[in-house]
Amino acid sequence: MLYQFSARAHTLLSSPLLSIRTQTRRSSMISLAEELPAEELFPLSLLAEAASTVISADAGALQYGDPAGYGPLREWLAGDWLREKGVTVTEGGVLLTTGSQQAIDLLSRVYIDPGDRVLVENPTSPGFLQTLRMQGAIIIPVEGDLDGLHPDHLRRQIELHKPKMLFATPSFTNPSGILWSLERRREVLDLCIAYNILIVEDDSYGDLHFQKYGEHWATRYPSLYALENISDGGHVLYIGSFSKTVAPALRTGWAAGSREVIGMMAAAKQMADWQSSALNQRLLHHLLDVTAFDLREHIAQLNREYNTRLKLMVELLKRPAWKGSSYDLPSGGMFLWVSPPEGMDVMALLKCALGKGVAFLPGPLCSVDGSGNHIRLNFSHPGRDELLLGMNLMSEAVKEFTARS
Amino acid sequence: MLYQFSARAHTLLSSPLLSIRTQTRRSSMISLAEELPAEELFPLSLLAEAASTVISADAGALQYGDPAGYGPLREWLAGDWLREKGVTVTEGGVLLTTGSQQAIDLLSRVYIDPGDRVLVENPTSPGFLQTLRMQGAIIIPVEGDLDGLHPDHLRRQIELHKPKMLFATPSFTNPSGILWSLERRREVLDLCIAYNILIVEDDSYGDLHFQKYGEHWATRYPSLYALENISDGGHVLYIGSFSKTVAPALRTGWAAGSREVIGMMAAAKQMADWQSSALNQRLLHHLLDVTAFDLREHIAQLNREYNTRLKLMVELLKRPAWKGSSYDLPSGGMFLWVSPPEGMDVMALLKCALGKGVAFLPGPLCSVDGSGNHIRLNFSHPGRDELLLGMNLMSEAVKEFTARS
Repeated sequence: MLYQFSARAHTLLSSPLLSIRTQTRRSSMISLAEELPAEELFPLSLLAEAASTVISADAGALQYGDPAGYGPLREWLAGDWLREKGVTVTEGGVLLTTGSQQAIDLLSRVYIDPGDRVLVENPTSPGFLQTLRMQGAIIIPVEGDLDGLHPDHLRRQIELHKPKMLFATPSFTNPSGILWSLERRREVLDLCIAYNILIVEDDSYGDLHFQKYGEHWATRYPSLYALENISDGGHVLYIGSFSKTVAPALRTGWAAGSREVIGMMAAAKQMADWQSSALNQRLLHHLLDVTAFDLREHIAQLNREYNTRLKLMVELLKRPAWKGSSYDLPSGGMFLWVSPPEGMDVMALLKCALGKGVAFLPGPLCSVDGSGNHIRLNFSHPGRDELLLGMNLMSEAVKEFTARS
Repeated sequence: MLYQFSARAHTLLSSPLLSIRTQTRRSSMISLAEELPAEELFPLSLLAEAASTVISADAGALQYGDPAGYGPLREWLAGDWLREKGVTVTEGGVLLTTGSQQAIDLLSRVYIDPGDRVLVENPTSPGFLQTLRMQGAIIIPVEGDLDGLHPDHLRRQIELHKPKMLFATPSFTNPSGILWSLERRREVLDLCIAYNILIVEDDSYGDLHFQKYGEHWATRYPSLYALENISDGGHVLYIGSFSKTVAPALRTGWAAGSREVIGMMAAAKQMADWQSSALNQRLLHHLLDVTAFDLREHIAQLNREYNTRLKLMVELLKRPAWKGSSYDLPSGGMFLWVSPPEGMDVMALLKCALGKGVAFLPGPLCSVDGSGNHIRLNFSHPGRDELLLGMNLMSEAVKEFTARS
């Protein structure tokens, strides 16, 4: 039949993101394009045990649960875990979601109308750009540097565009890996409070905070959410996830914020899918609260390993093929954001790399206007051998490309 | 802060559905309001074993998976299971979702613009009405009887309103439990094909098909999807779920349809939550394909039990309090749709019932214009004792109400 899709449905298909992901998943390609955690480090045996125990103990584990998410897991989060980060969760102020992406999508649906202005870091997460485009938002980029968004430019954009929302990832921005300074955090928060702008703070990568290459452990900064006293404000919706710290297939993320915003998102969640898997939420709770698993120790282990992989990637970028390329070394996250040798078009390079069997995420997918000639390389997923092979293929692609032009 | 929610966000909160569900979940109330399966019948030990095996076997079970859903489970579905129902799935023609509600929501997002007309049975699923309202659709009710939608009225509504979509549940419509006749199925399908209308066919309840009270097993009719040859058309998007037949907490539903529609929904799914839990999908696949579990036998067992519960409910409705009420006995599904004694307002009755500690779903939540003075009673979840107690409380509420008026 002749389908009449909705006006903005085409924005979903026009993104090359989809085809890169499909290609890398359906072939034996090495992917430096995605944001996968290292599966060698999953707490497999503890989770297997947790699953068996939880399912055997109570048929309720397989029934529909609370649409806001399994109560004890929300309490666990709101307890020591978030409190230690300075995040205060009020009653009814946390919602469990299917990963952090769903939290972002739900908030967009209840907060953004077509034509509304939304501020973003530039570059920013392709997933968030897609959500905003589908929602019909007008996306306004804000300039920044290694310390985070420029307050002056932020103020100018606010006064010019009267935006409703700012989307930000102050700790290890996807894709650039930037860690905002404390001063910038304060300035951005103050501006948004002054102009009544809701901040969506994605802290999915915040725990992946490791030693800076050859330097001291980087300082941990409070989240924007922690900087604002919740009883005073509610200008920040704080989003996190267990996907990067425990296991993605449990599909458990969360949003914490004012009761009013969380209540509206919870209502949208019931419409969207009624609820996420209460079974997975119980597994997680059992793992965290009952077994010998220590999340802090586990994250420390991840960070040691990811730092090692990042160092290896940085070594491999010293090869002659990469002459003229540059990057700022991140102190955490999952990505290295590389500026290629001058004159090299990354979309053309991607084609060449895919032909050789390796994928990366091209910068234009992360920018508001499709500019941004960068290469996003993921270092968390590939093990040593895969990383070596993947970077060899990347070097070949770069060399071939340089020779051609 | 002063929040500026999107224009239609209020449609989510205006529904009393939310508060009924919240009240029944957070207290010791007996709920005849929801659509929960009987948890005594969950295949607990097989699932516990499956979980332990699947997680131990392969770290990939905890990693991000294919956004369209775990391949082997899609193949299992597309194989004997759906083939036996006459449902042919083409390559790329099935998407796993977080329950059937997500399939409905995704389709609405990619197909419906504000102001588009959508046809529905009346009464229909409150969850679907909510999705359409949030999407800004104009909802057009079509009249029907015990055999399904009236083709004449359907044609008039089509010619008058030029709708894009019809939402229908031909096998055990929620809430009325109606099973469309084969003739009506053919007529409705032909009309929609003639007028280029996409049919969303929710078959979540289709397997819960049991002996008609005191009569022979009811005939099984093909789905609208099976009636149309997929290669000819693609006018039907077929939706199903494991929530009613295996366990809701696995949150696994599916949509089958043309490659074009499924492709668009899959793109929307990536934006909405990237993917459902591949772990749960692997558990299901292991249960269905590897263990001794036989889904057909399991469904037969469910149906025997649900039929027994329905019979008990029907007996309890013979009590004097219910004099003047009426219903049509369903041959499947999860609900009895009761017309109360004359002059009794069900919204007022609900208040009285909640006060006594029992909940039901009031008819107005299932209708396009908030009319429909009916009581939806769920018989699948409460066990014998709970059903007795719940119906006692309901009878008391009805009596008290009759005495008062």
